[in-house]
Amino acid sequence: MTRLSDKYDPGPQIAQCGGINLGTPDLEKSLWFFRDTLGMEEVERRGNVSYLRCHQELGHHSLVLTEQAEAIVNAYSFRVRRPQDVELFAEELKRQEIEVLEVPAETEIGRGTAIRFLLPGGDHPFELYYDIDKPLAPEHMRSRLPSNSSKRRGLGVRRIDHFNIQTSPSTINQAEQWVRANLGFKRREFAYLPESPGTVMASWMSVTPQMHDLAIVANRQDKKAQLHHVAFNLQDFSDGLVAADILKDLDVSFSAGPGKHGIGQAMYLYVHDPASDHRVELYAGGYLIFDPDWEPIEWKKEAFPDGLTWYGDPIDTKPGSRGRDTTGSAGLHLK
Amino acid sequence: MTRLSDKYDPGPQIAQCGGINLGTPDLEKSLWFFRDTLGMEEVERRGNVSYLRCHQELGHHSLVLTEQAEAIVNAYSFRVRRPQDVELFAEELKRQEIEVLEVPAETEIGRGTAIRFLLPGGDHPFELYYDIDKPLAPEHMRSRLPSNSSKRRGLGVRRIDHFNIQTSPSTINQAEQWVRANLGFKRREFAYLPESPGTVMASWMSVTPQMHDLAIVANRQDKKAQLHHVAFNLQDFSDGLVAADILKDLDVSFSAGPGKHGIGQAMYLYVHDPASDHRVELYAGGYLIFDPDWEPIEWKKEAFPDGLTWYGDPIDTKPGSRGRDTTGSAGLHLK
Amino acid sequence: MTRLSDKYDPGPQIAQCGGINLGTPDLEKSLWFFRDTLGMEEVERRGNVSYLRCHQELGHHSLVLTEQAEAIVNAYSFRVRRPQDVELFAEELKRQEIEVLEVPAETEIGRGTAIRFLLPGGDHPFELYYDIDKPLAPEHMRSRLPSNSSKRRGLGVRRIDHFNIQTSPSTINQAEQWVRANLGFKRREFAYLPESPGTVMASWMSVTPQMHDLAIVANRQDKKAQLHHVAFNLQDFSDGLVAADILKDLDVSFSAGPGKHGIGQAMYLYVHDPASDHRVELYAGGYLIFDPDWEPIEWKKEAFPDGLTWYGDPIDTKPGSRGRDTTGSAGLHLK
Amino acid sequence: MTRLSDKYDPGPQIAQCGGINLGTPDLEKSLWFFRDTLGMEEVERRGNVSYLRCHQELGHHSLVLTEQAEAIVNAYSFRVRRPQDVELFAEELKRQEIEVLEVPAETEIGRGTAIRFLLPGGDHPFELYYDIDKPLAPEHMRSRLPSNSSKRRGLGVRRIDHFNIQTSPSTINQAEQWVRANLGFKRREFAYLPESPGTVMASWMSVTPQMHDLAIVANRQDKKAQLHHVAFNLQDFSDGLVAADILKDLDVSFSAGPGKHGIGQAMYLYVHDPASDHRVELYAGGYLIFDPDWEPIEWKKEAFPDGLTWYGDPIDTKPGSRGRDTTGSAGLHLK
Repeated sequence: MTRLSDKYDPGPQIAQCGGINLGTPDLEKSLWFFRDTLGMEEVERRGNVSYLRCHQELGHHSLVLTEQAEAIVNAYSFRVRRPQDVELFAEELKRQEIEVLEVPAETEIGRGTAIRFLLPGGDHPFELYYDIDKPLAPEHMRSRLPSNSSKRRGLGVRRIDHFNIQTSPSTINQAEQWVRANLGFKRREFAYLPESPGTVMASWMSVTPQMHDLAIVANRQDKKAQLHHVAFNLQDFSDGLVAADILKDLDVSFSAGPGKHGIGQAMYLYVHDPASDHRVELYAGGYLIFDPDWEPIEWKKEAFPDGLTWYGDPIDTKPGSRGRDTTGSAGLHLK
Repeated sequence: MTRLSDKYDPGPQIAQCGGINLGTPDLEKSLWFFRDTLGMEEVERRGNVSYLRCHQELGHHSLVLTEQAEAIVNAYSFRVRRPQDVELFAEELKRQEIEVLEVPAETEIGRGTAIRFLLPGGDHPFELYYDIDKPLAPEHMRSRLPSNSSKRRGLGVRRIDHFNIQTSPSTINQAEQWVRANLGFKRREFAYLPESPGTVMASWMSVTPQMHDLAIVANRQDKKAQLHHVAFNLQDFSDGLVAADILKDLDVSFSAGPGKHGIGQAMYLYVHDPASDHRVELYAGGYLIFDPDWEPIEWKKEAFPDGLTWYGDPIDTKPGSRGRDTTGSAGLHLK
Repeated sequence: MTRLSDKYDPGPQIAQCGGINLGTPDLEKSLWFFRDTLGMEEVERRGNVSYLRCHQELGHHSLVLTEQAEAIVNAYSFRVRRPQDVELFAEELKRQEIEVLEVPAETEIGRGTAIRFLLPGGDHPFELYYDIDKPLAPEHMRSRLPSNSSKRRGLGVRRIDHFNIQTSPSTINQAEQWVRANLGFKRREFAYLPESPGTVMASWMSVTPQMHDLAIVANRQDKKAQLHHVAFNLQDFSDGLVAADILKDLDVSFSAGPGKHGIGQAMYLYVHDPASDHRVELYAGGYLIFDPDWEPIEWKKEAFPDGLTWYGDPIDTKPGSRGRDTTGSAGLHLK
Repeated sequence: MTRLSDKYDPGPQIAQCGGINLGTPDLEKSLWFFRDTLGMEEVERRGNVSYLRCHQELGHHSLVLTEQAEAIVNAYSFRVRRPQDVELFAEELKRQEIEVLEVPAETEIGRGTAIRFLLPGGDHPFELYYDIDKPLAPEHMRSRLPSNSSKRRGLGVRRIDHFNIQTSPSTINQAEQWVRANLGFKRREFAYLPESPGTVMASWMSVTPQMHDLAIVANRQDKKAQLHHVAFNLQDFSDGLVAADILKDLDVSFSAGPGKHGIGQAMYLYVHDPASDHRVELYAGGYLIFDPDWEPIEWKKEAFPDGLTWYGDPIDTKPGSRGRDTTGSAGLHLK
């Protein structure tokens, strides 16, 4: 079939928030959380590294758990739209004199060649890749629905949803603009620091119709390279309530939720992996943006509390209020 | 900000399923259904034409109700990604010697210039437009959330979701291939006619990460230019159950549902506007496709019943089983 | 049919929490809240008094709104199990030298003769009645389900659920024991004041398998005759979330919620009638008690926060924290 | 505390539908279903007999699985309100010349002395007991909520709800009247056989405010002593949908559902234990009856389909339509 689009070249693009590689001091305990409780499938284990995916993900993994001393983020990975986009992005990074490492295929099992660099202004280790295996789940776990890799289990997380990362107020504008200018992220909702108009306090951005695939937030303790949370998607708000009920009875640490954000209109429940203390958001609902001329929504100071918490358990933004605040990142080296 | 994407030209693209213009013999009765029961906002009325939108839509309308003798579809409208795409698509249609009408701005109130043509192989009147007003709702209806145009009401439909159209088995392949080749729709799930392998029985396609923005289905009575249903989106499966409960008590005609499709993993509830008998699907959930290398899922005969109805009230595909089957379309002329 | 039970006499008993008569300074505004927003049916209006019921209630009313200067509670009404129980309870009250008024039939429209007295230790005006009309709803509102009086509307409150009343710590034990000894309420869950072991801080009691039809709580400002809230029942937790969403957008005042109580395992959402500021709980779920040998659950200080809020928006028990604290009651006179 | 009720004697009464003892040819497979999938706790195992309860049940068990050749019901057990009621009911049975066996304590582990007899007109083996142990769950399963015995797991069944039993049309009136006259069940909703007015087709009865604790239905194949289904309660309708989704993917046999009954207003999902083929209803919602003067609702022929299925997957009442129809019962002997 000849397609009209074949006459055009959209250039290199990010397709989705693909996966995260989290360090944990206790792999078995983290597996109790992500696999046995949230319901992810452990697709593969190699030594002290485990690869997991959700039941609605066909790719090899969206979460890598690496047993290591430091509970930091080893990589934030984004999938690109076309095989050639990995190389095209690498060229652009070099043109901008940003240091880029090539991550050989199978460094993360099941994944092709990737590139790795530090987010300008954020220092978060970003990886871009295209190729990823799509293994069938073992027969006893395999879903009868071909759009699911495995049967729903546990709390029913169905796919990775987004990253929320933090950096210093002094460099956040650089980081936010860089992902918009170079990776194609669009600002969907945002707020400036009340004390510093024009400086991003938080920006929710996406390359997809989701309200955000990536949020960048100013870190109140002036730290760069921080993870606030990684989010996994649930089907319905009712799934979020069941998750809250079960996690509370399991005495898993909550930092906030359940509640509904005004920003994005989604249900949130922030809990912590008991082994690594990384914050995980169980996320449901939200609106989709199909308008090509979407005007980013600015949240001013007075309305901002409704933006954080439209209803439900309020989010406390004071550092250390509940649970670990943020998680640092590995630098520019291969794990 | 200089964007990397500025160096590239993605060509003309469809952004979303934008709206539908339905004929109804009784405007007030149709408004009872769409406005008072489903909960849409009537944004504007001009004579016998009413313009409505859902509470999560910022554009002027996604539904036009036109009081007229024939309960047919006057137009299926798609919004394009860039202002220039309307003209670029018009040029391509002329190049292919497809007749195109220009629909002047404000023919549908609030909308800019559009083009109108008949879908090759389907004869459905398609309209493409870019400009649309984004009026604020009246103050008493306006939502405190800036991402909603108005407060949630009634059964809580939040946006138009997709069209399901039908054409003759003898021309369906032409229609399906034409939208894929020219409008950028991607096949996500599909089935061939059991009696005619290679002939599309149903194809679910999208330009967005939704599993489908448009489905094309073979009409069992060999009719072209038919609407099977237009779908409106609900937030959660529980909203679909509440809708079923209330609509049943209002004695609105159901053709099937509630139930969950295996195809697309969404909840369905098919009901009929009591004035026009057009079929409307209340639709919730479903999975999103972010994989750039998505392999279309083929449904073979044995699995197809699970695809139609994974659980719940089974869909009966026999003509005339419950409610009006399909609705014809206006031809290539301006209303 | 001869019944084995005919050989026995269970004595006078309370059948259910039947209704409440609330004073409001602005009847129309209160009707906007209870009728137009929560979805109750206004069964009858006489002058400045309106009678309402929920769609799953067959009796004439469970809520009376009386326009008057003081936004107090005029009566808490309980239905008894048998016609003769009204008189039997009256005799017992007289035996105990508690002053009793006879409330003539039709004092509240649709209701038979009642008796009225002040709760010993609480001073809340309690009324006991048996006869109540069961009028059909107007045809356009009538449900097609005979177990519902009308079609579900608005936020879908389906029946009155319970009263939560407050009295002074110095008399609360008297009040709590009196309803248990005389009205047949059973303690289901309770807590003592941390500073005064043996003094009830809160006691949740029922005559039905509900965890509570009546709660009595110590008032921190030492006031007797207070209403903390009256609760209306929703079918599902998801209905509570939809209610929160809509009420928040309507800018109705929340005092807490949505959240889930550990005590009773039910969802709560406390909001205020904008006219009278009476607190209303929208309540869903909870467990039922069928065990005849149920051991009342005592909540000790450390666990109590989990009892109040198992998850969700935490209940703040500091006086005046959000919204009006409590509402006083009319004394021992007929309205 | 002296209670007013102490002056009266309500006589022997049934407190609740307490438990069922099911035969199964494959205990491990039945445990996969009831314990591992539905989420019950296996409290105890003795040889080929397993005792299970739901997470909201404090008593020792509500389900006994007995490995045996015949997949029949060994006993339907009801708990009485007072210790002396077991003996009082035994005396009444003897007075009526109904044969009664004494079932010694610990015949079912954890249970006190019971009596056993065949339901007149039904031949179902009924057992009445009062004493039952309330063991704590093992620490790792124990809930942090004292009103739950264990943490919610699996599909979240929280308690046994009701029995639906069948007998021959020629004796059904005897059976239905007997339980009403002697065990205190009240008719809540019912239908007569269209071909035989005055003969019960189905009667939903309760001793509690539930719409039914016991239903008796005419068996179309003229069999006595049949079980149609035993029901377990879920919290919300959304739990019923999640259960349907998961059970469908596990390829468990459905006989009908999910859907909502007009009769009782509850969600149903009928599935079959894959080992024994006993039908199990997962049941959510429904209305509660507090009216002491409740008028039983009669369902006439025309309305009856809406009564069976208000919305959702329709119940097919033709014998053998989907799954095993009914399950016979053991006679009057001790297992």
